[in-house]
Amino acid sequence: MKRYILTVSYDGTDYCGWQVQPNGKTVQEVLNDAVFKAFGERAVVKASGRTDAGVHARAQVCQVDLNADIAGEKLADALNARLPDDISVLNSTAVPDTVDIQSIAKAKTYRYYLYFCQRKKPLLERYSTWIKGEPDIEKMREAAEILCGEHDFKAYCASGSQVKTTVRKIFSLKVEEQPVPPDCKVVYIEAYGNGFLYNMVRTIAGTILWYSQGKLTKEDLYETLKGNRNKVGKTMPAKGLVLYSVGYGAKVEYDGYDD
Amino acid sequence: MKRYILTVSYDGTDYCGWQVQPNGKTVQEVLNDAVFKAFGERAVVKASGRTDAGVHARAQVCQVDLNADIAGEKLADALNARLPDDISVLNSTAVPDTVDIQSIAKAKTYRYYLYFCQRKKPLLERYSTWIKGEPDIEKMREAAEILCGEHDFKAYCASGSQVKTTVRKIFSLKVEEQPVPPDCKVVYIEAYGNGFLYNMVRTIAGTILWYSQGKLTKEDLYETLKGNRNKVGKTMPAKGLVLYSVGYGAKVEYDGYDD
Repeated sequence: MKRYILTVSYDGTDYCGWQVQPNGKTVQEVLNDAVFKAFGERAVVKASGRTDAGVHARAQVCQVDLNADIAGEKLADALNARLPDDISVLNSTAVPDTVDIQSIAKAKTYRYYLYFCQRKKPLLERYSTWIKGEPDIEKMREAAEILCGEHDFKAYCASGSQVKTTVRKIFSLKVEEQPVPPDCKVVYIEAYGNGFLYNMVRTIAGTILWYSQGKLTKEDLYETLKGNRNKVGKTMPAKGLVLYSVGYGAKVEYDGYDD
Repeated sequence: MKRYILTVSYDGTDYCGWQVQPNGKTVQEVLNDAVFKAFGERAVVKASGRTDAGVHARAQVCQVDLNADIAGEKLADALNARLPDDISVLNSTAVPDTVDIQSIAKAKTYRYYLYFCQRKKPLLERYSTWIKGEPDIEKMREAAEILCGEHDFKAYCASGSQVKTTVRKIFSLKVEEQPVPPDCKVVYIEAYGNGFLYNMVRTIAGTILWYSQGKLTKEDLYETLKGNRNKVGKTMPAKGLVLYSVGYGAKVEYDGYDD
C-alpha cells in the first residue's frame, strides 16, 4: 500500500460539496469513482477539509492509499482521464504513509469574490457575487482589521455545527481589488487562517460588506467577536467562495501553483 | 412606437445561440419573453448579428421597438427583473426609429480564449479552451499577421452557410497574454473586423494555434487565403469565444464599457 497526495481543483457549482452523502453528487464521490475506474480499488480520497455545496477549490489537498503501485507523478493523469471537466488533479506525489494531510494542514486560504457595478454581468456571475454600487475598499479594510486575529468566531458559524471549539486564528484578512474595466470592480476578501468554521468565511465576507455599506458599526463588529450572532452580516452565496490553497508550513507546498 | 438600443451580455453555455429556433432555448427567445412579461407586448429583439450555440457575449448590441413609453435608461432594469442570471441588459437608450443596428454596425470584436498548462484547470474551463503545453506567442503572432487584412475567408467558413460574399476585412488580429499564475498562461486572440463568417473566428483561432505548434506552415496559411479548406486548423470549441464589442464608428459606443 502506498500513500499519495493529490492537489485537486474543482468548480463546485454542480456538486453538493466535498463529502460523500446520500443525496446528490459530491466531489469526493466522483474522485473515489475515478480511482475505482483506474485501478479497480474501492479507496477513499480524503481532503484536508470539506468544502460546502457550490464552493470551488483552486487547490484542495487530498490523500489516498492505493495498492496499485504507480509512480507518484503519474497518478494525476491516470485519474484525470476518468474525471469530468469540472474536477482536475493538478499534481500528485507519493509520500510516506506516516503523512496525514488532515493533521499536518497548518493553514488554509480562502477567497471570497464580489463584483460591484450598476448591473449584473453574466460573465462574472459564476464565480462572484454581484453588489450594486461602488465598493468602499477603505471601509472594508477597517472591518477586516477588526476581525483579523484569534477570536471566538461562534457568531460566524452556522448554528447546529458540532466542533470542539469555535476559536480560530485568522493570520491575515485582506481586501484586494482586481484590475478590470472601469465600469465594474472585482474585489476579493482573502482569509488566511489556521482553520475556518462552517460558513465562517461567507459570513465574514457579508459582515465586511455590510460594515462598508454602513449597515453595521464598529461596535457591532466587536459585539460579534463576543458571540452576538445578531450583529453579523449576511452569509454570502457559496458561488463566490474558493478554497485558494492549503498550507503545510514554509517548505512543504503541494498546491500546484507557484504564486 | 419607440425604438430602443440595448447592450446585452450573456453566458452562452446553456443556449442554442442567439436566434430563435424550434429546438432549444435561445438568447433571443428569453429576451423576447422578458419584453412580454414586462410590457405585455410580443416584440422581437434584434441583435447586431447572431452568435452560435455556446458562444458568449460581453457586449452584444440589440434593438427593439415598443409601444410602451418607457424612458430609455429605465428599460434595462425593467427587463433585468425578468431575466435569468446568465443574460443581462447592461444599458439601454431610446433612439430615433431611423436607426437600424444591423445596417450601422461597422465592426465587431471577438476574443478567443485559450489557456496553456500541464493539466486542465476547472476554474478556467467555462470560458476558455485548455491546450497542453507552452504557448509560442511569437509564432501565434506570425500567423495572425498573415491572416489579418482583407481576404476571401471561404476556407474559414463552415460549409453550407449562405452568404453573398466570403470576403471580409480583419482590421486587427492580436494575440495577447493575460497575467495569471506562472504555471498557467491565458492567451486570447482578438479579432476586430468588419464582419465574420460562420465559425470564422473559431477556425482562425485553431489555425493560429496549429501554426504555432508546427502543424501548419506559412505556405499552408497562404493556401487557406486562396480558399484551400484542407489547410485550416481545427474549429475551436464555442465556449472560448466571446463577442467582445460591436462598433458603430468612433463617436457612437453602445457597449456599456469604457475600456
